[in-house]
Amino acid sequence: MENFQYYTPTKVVFGKGTEDQTGELVKAQGCKKVLVHYGSGSVVRSGLLDRIYRSLDAAGIDYISLGGVVPNPRLSLVYEGIELCRKEGVDFILAVGGGSVIDSAKAIGYGVYNGGDVWDFYEGKRQADGCLPIGVVLTISAAGSEMSDSSVITNEDGWLKRGYNCDHCRAKFAIMDPVLTMTLPKYQTASGCVDIMMHTMERYFNQSDNMELTDGISENLIRTVMKNAKILMEEPDNYDARAEVMWAGSLSHNGLTGCGTGGGDWASHQLEHELGGMFDVAHGAGLAAVWGSWARYVMDARPERFAQFAVRVMGVTPGADDTETAVKGIEAMEAFYRSIDMPVCIRDMGIDVTEEQLEELAMKCSKFETRTIGCVKKLDREDMYQIYKNARG
Amino acid sequence: MENFQYYTPTKVVFGKGTEDQTGELVKAQGCKKVLVHYGSGSVVRSGLLDRIYRSLDAAGIDYISLGGVVPNPRLSLVYEGIELCRKEGVDFILAVGGGSVIDSAKAIGYGVYNGGDVWDFYEGKRQADGCLPIGVVLTISAAGSEMSDSSVITNEDGWLKRGYNCDHCRAKFAIMDPVLTMTLPKYQTASGCVDIMMHTMERYFNQSDNMELTDGISENLIRTVMKNAKILMEEPDNYDARAEVMWAGSLSHNGLTGCGTGGGDWASHQLEHELGGMFDVAHGAGLAAVWGSWARYVMDARPERFAQFAVRVMGVTPGADDTETAVKGIEAMEAFYRSIDMPVCIRDMGIDVTEEQLEELAMKCSKFETRTIGCVKKLDREDMYQIYKNARG
Repeated sequence: MENFQYYTPTKVVFGKGTEDQTGELVKAQGCKKVLVHYGSGSVVRSGLLDRIYRSLDAAGIDYISLGGVVPNPRLSLVYEGIELCRKEGVDFILAVGGGSVIDSAKAIGYGVYNGGDVWDFYEGKRQADGCLPIGVVLTISAAGSEMSDSSVITNEDGWLKRGYNCDHCRAKFAIMDPVLTMTLPKYQTASGCVDIMMHTMERYFNQSDNMELTDGISENLIRTVMKNAKILMEEPDNYDARAEVMWAGSLSHNGLTGCGTGGGDWASHQLEHELGGMFDVAHGAGLAAVWGSWARYVMDARPERFAQFAVRVMGVTPGADDTETAVKGIEAMEAFYRSIDMPVCIRDMGIDVTEEQLEELAMKCSKFETRTIGCVKKLDREDMYQIYKNARG
Repeated sequence: MENFQYYTPTKVVFGKGTEDQTGELVKAQGCKKVLVHYGSGSVVRSGLLDRIYRSLDAAGIDYISLGGVVPNPRLSLVYEGIELCRKEGVDFILAVGGGSVIDSAKAIGYGVYNGGDVWDFYEGKRQADGCLPIGVVLTISAAGSEMSDSSVITNEDGWLKRGYNCDHCRAKFAIMDPVLTMTLPKYQTASGCVDIMMHTMERYFNQSDNMELTDGISENLIRTVMKNAKILMEEPDNYDARAEVMWAGSLSHNGLTGCGTGGGDWASHQLEHELGGMFDVAHGAGLAAVWGSWARYVMDARPERFAQFAVRVMGVTPGADDTETAVKGIEAMEAFYRSIDMPVCIRDMGIDVTEEQLEELAMKCSKFETRTIGCVKKLDREDMYQIYKNARG
């Protein structure tokens, strides 16, 4: 079992109607001016943004707004937000949305606090000294950014999608009302569920002796998300199912499912980042499309772990040996993905990847052959190329 | 499913040798003078206190010390600590020990920060505005006070044991090295394991529709503690077993196992508090002694919940109906308690409770008939008397 740190300072306010507490929660932060950051028109059309404004008004909070965040949030809008915050003296950012909005808010927060080019952090060139404080009203269960230390931004110059992890950006509070997620389209709901599962699966597959406690939490979390994802395909307004998935989304990426595991693999995420950067696919769908290919490529390095996953999570009857059991588990997960209309290869997303693009994906993912990824099996550019190729479909 | 808040700002630094980071963690708090608070001579004899001092010295931290905390920590020492902190200008308290030491540190922190009589908070007469910041080096897995919002103090004037829950006292950091718990005697280890299990069981038995995710976490946590408690009876220096129990201790009482449950029952804790105040028994042992009596008394109010517990946690084969299954589960838990030399009635702790003492316990526990306890079934003084009587043995 590995030593670990666990740090989740975010105050979670969870349940029906909790968004009405936004004003008082922001006020308790003692800030002077707030940037309300959001994405598309859906939070406008639903009336949520108006309710948030009323709550801020009632608490006597001064604020300005910046919308327009898109999935795979863009660096250009981050730059715009930084400039706006500086000009207006903003000292608190309220993200109203899902992972893309929160990640964009975090990036703006880094930029305002630290000066210099914020992209440096995402390129791994330097570390942030701090971040403007962030609050969240969550509308999409998926990325777990409301409790995580992570932020992922896409640079349109080269379509590079890069993540930066740092405790400074952890949200001060996260308001989580499952009702707000009921209007999400089926595809986005399913994609979010895959993202949630993958945040735990990335940690679950590693090269450590694990904690039983963490394994049990992880296995239960993945099973719970699978069960409730299926319910939501039929009943999108099932409150309890929305709540299970929403809370799972936070616990899956706040560090809990990584305690004692030594950090996890994360190769599937790195492989997906390049897909998302190049083809702008939904993150969860992209993860589903590469996972099976990744799993088959690396399982021989730790068949007993894949076999445990197959039995405890997927409910598979053990085969003749761990390898056979492991394969049954991977097939069962792919069958689950299909059952919620998620892809199991890149072609399933309507993308016909060319040979040249395969090479480009592997080159970018290896940062031009300067890094390996993964820990179940360390993967170099050639491995990445093979996994992309096997995932092409 | 109930709305909930979840707030666990404590930075956990977990694993072998982590106590050597004490100095730098205290220094990061930006404090001027530290009170090192501890209990008996064991932390002196083991050399731990000297290592902590060396770590503080190396970080250039100014500190004073106050030892002498006993199990069921006393209000008189809390008063002494408050006076000492005021005199010496202490602005940070480092608790080196288990739940009693941490709870005493929290009480001192409340006293210094708020003025007036600190016992008021424990009597429910007023709320604290804040608390001196607390850090923890944990040496006993049991109370979960290192991440919880709770503090329990015993007032020698009347031997009243009272708890106060408030977010202000949550520790800034908790250093958790499982190695430090290896020298605990068997009885204290077993008692600690019961305490850990009970913090989740109190939350598990309630009157709510629960979250599946929380149920799964809770059931896995209790099973994990039971399994590793048994290992520790044979192998007290098994690192992995110590680590599982230690991390379970924090997760069991930081709020995680209560998310969506509406708060839990807590009657067993209230009943034990009076036992602990009157007879100074180990907290976990006292809980084990009353739990079976409590469970049989209230199970008819929610047989299906007790049956779920019996099947999923205790691994019992279901009986003809929920009630039969529930009873099998309670019997299985009592068998487990016996297997780790824990009591299943008050007499098992060598205490022969008189009829007058039963009346006194019930009178104190009902705060002289001014309150009921529990939520599975609301219990008044007469109910408390019956549960104590059935637990007498």
